[in-house]
Amino acid sequence: MEEVRLIEVKEEIMSDNDAVANSLKDRLAKEKTFLMNLMSSPGAGKTSLILKTLEGLGDQLRVGIIEADIDSMVDAEKVSAQCVATVQLRTGGFCHLDASMVEKGLNSMDLGKLDLVIIENVGNLVCPAEFDTGAIKNVMILSVPEGDDKPLKYPLMFSVCDVLLVNKIDYLDFSDFDIKAMRERVLNLNRNIKIFEVSARTGQGVEAWIDWLKNEVTAFIG
Amino acid sequence: MEEVRLIEVKEEIMSDNDAVANSLKDRLAKEKTFLMNLMSSPGAGKTSLILKTLEGLGDQLRVGIIEADIDSMVDAEKVSAQCVATVQLRTGGFCHLDASMVEKGLNSMDLGKLDLVIIENVGNLVCPAEFDTGAIKNVMILSVPEGDDKPLKYPLMFSVCDVLLVNKIDYLDFSDFDIKAMRERVLNLNRNIKIFEVSARTGQGVEAWIDWLKNEVTAFIG
Repeated sequence: MEEVRLIEVKEEIMSDNDAVANSLKDRLAKEKTFLMNLMSSPGAGKTSLILKTLEGLGDQLRVGIIEADIDSMVDAEKVSAQCVATVQLRTGGFCHLDASMVEKGLNSMDLGKLDLVIIENVGNLVCPAEFDTGAIKNVMILSVPEGDDKPLKYPLMFSVCDVLLVNKIDYLDFSDFDIKAMRERVLNLNRNIKIFEVSARTGQGVEAWIDWLKNEVTAFIG
Repeated sequence: MEEVRLIEVKEEIMSDNDAVANSLKDRLAKEKTFLMNLMSSPGAGKTSLILKTLEGLGDQLRVGIIEADIDSMVDAEKVSAQCVATVQLRTGGFCHLDASMVEKGLNSMDLGKLDLVIIENVGNLVCPAEFDTGAIKNVMILSVPEGDDKPLKYPLMFSVCDVLLVNKIDYLDFSDFDIKAMRERVLNLNRNIKIFEVSARTGQGVEAWIDWLKNEVTAFIG
C-alpha cells in the first residue's frame, strides 16, 4: 500500500481555467504523461472501474491516481492499496475539479515516473462537465441503474466526453434500461464518442476498454 | 394531462438566499401549503418516487410539482400525465435550485388550491445541499446501486435532510450494499433523520413513507 498524500484545494475564482488547462496539456506532452479525467454520478462505479483497470493493466503502464473527494479518503485508500501513486484532493464541499486543482495534484507527483494519471473527479454529472481539467481525454461512466434517459437530462456531460463506459451491465436483466435508445440519445449529442459496455463487478467488457486506453496512452507517450 | 408551464431560471448572484428562503417559509405558512424538497443523484429515482407518491395519495391531498431540469422536460411530462399542476424550471446548466428560483415556480401556481408542493431538485448530491429552497422538509433518495459509502462521501446532503428514502431495495439481493453500515453512517451525521426503505418499482415500503408525508402535511396545514 502506497502512502496517500492529502491536498486541500479551493477554487481560485480569478484564474482563467482554460489558460491553466492549456498550459497543463503542454506540460503533459513534454513529460509524456497521459492525463485522463473520469466523471460520473455518485455511485456509478468510478473507483471500482479504476481498480479493475489497474488490475488489467498490471505493470504495462506506470499509473498514478488523483482522487477528488469532498470530505473522505475512502476511495484514495482503496486505490493506494493497489500500490499506485495516489494523491487525494479534498475539495471541502466543492462540486468539481478545475485545472488549478489538478495542477496541484500533478505537482505533488513524479510525472517522469508515470505514463498515465487518472483523475477520479467529484461524483456529479453537472458541474465537472463545465471545467477543462487539462486532461487529454475525458471519460464518463453511466451505470445501468441510473436509467437510459440521462443523456436527455445531462447533455453537456455526454457532449464533452471522448468515451462513455456503460457500467453495471450485469444489472440489465433486472432493469428496463433500453440500451439502444440510450446509444441513440448519446450519439445525437456526440457522434464521436466511443461507447464500451462493461461491468466492473464481473469484469465483462473491461478488456476492450483497457485495450483502448493502452493504445491511446502508447500513442501519446510515443 | 395538465399543461406544463416552462420557466427559465438563472441564479441571482446578489440575492441573500437565506432571506428569500425565510420569507418563502412565512408565505407558505400563511397560504397553508407544505413545500417539500426532493434531492438525489441522477437516476436514484426521484421521478418514479414522485409518481408512486401521487398514486398512493390519490385525492387525499391537492399536490403540485416543481420540476428542475437542466435541459429537458421528460420528467415534467411524466408527472403532468398524472393530472397534477406541474411547473418546469429549466436551469440551463445550473446545478441546483435556490430560493429565488423556487419562488418563481410558486408564483406561477395557485397555492390556495394546493396542500403540498414537491420540488424535484436537479440530480446532484453536492450543490443542492448548500441552498435552502424555502422547503418545510428536505427529503433525499439514496438508491441501493449507488453504494453504502455515500454518507461518507457526501456528508452535507445527509446532514441537511429530514428524511432519507433508501430506494431500489429490490436490488439488495444482487448487490453488496450493507444497509446496517449505511444506517450507522447516516445516523452518525444526523441523529434525527427518518429512514424509509422503499422500492418505487415494486411499491415495497412506499406506504409508510406516504403515511409520514400525509401526517406532516396535515399537521402543517392544520
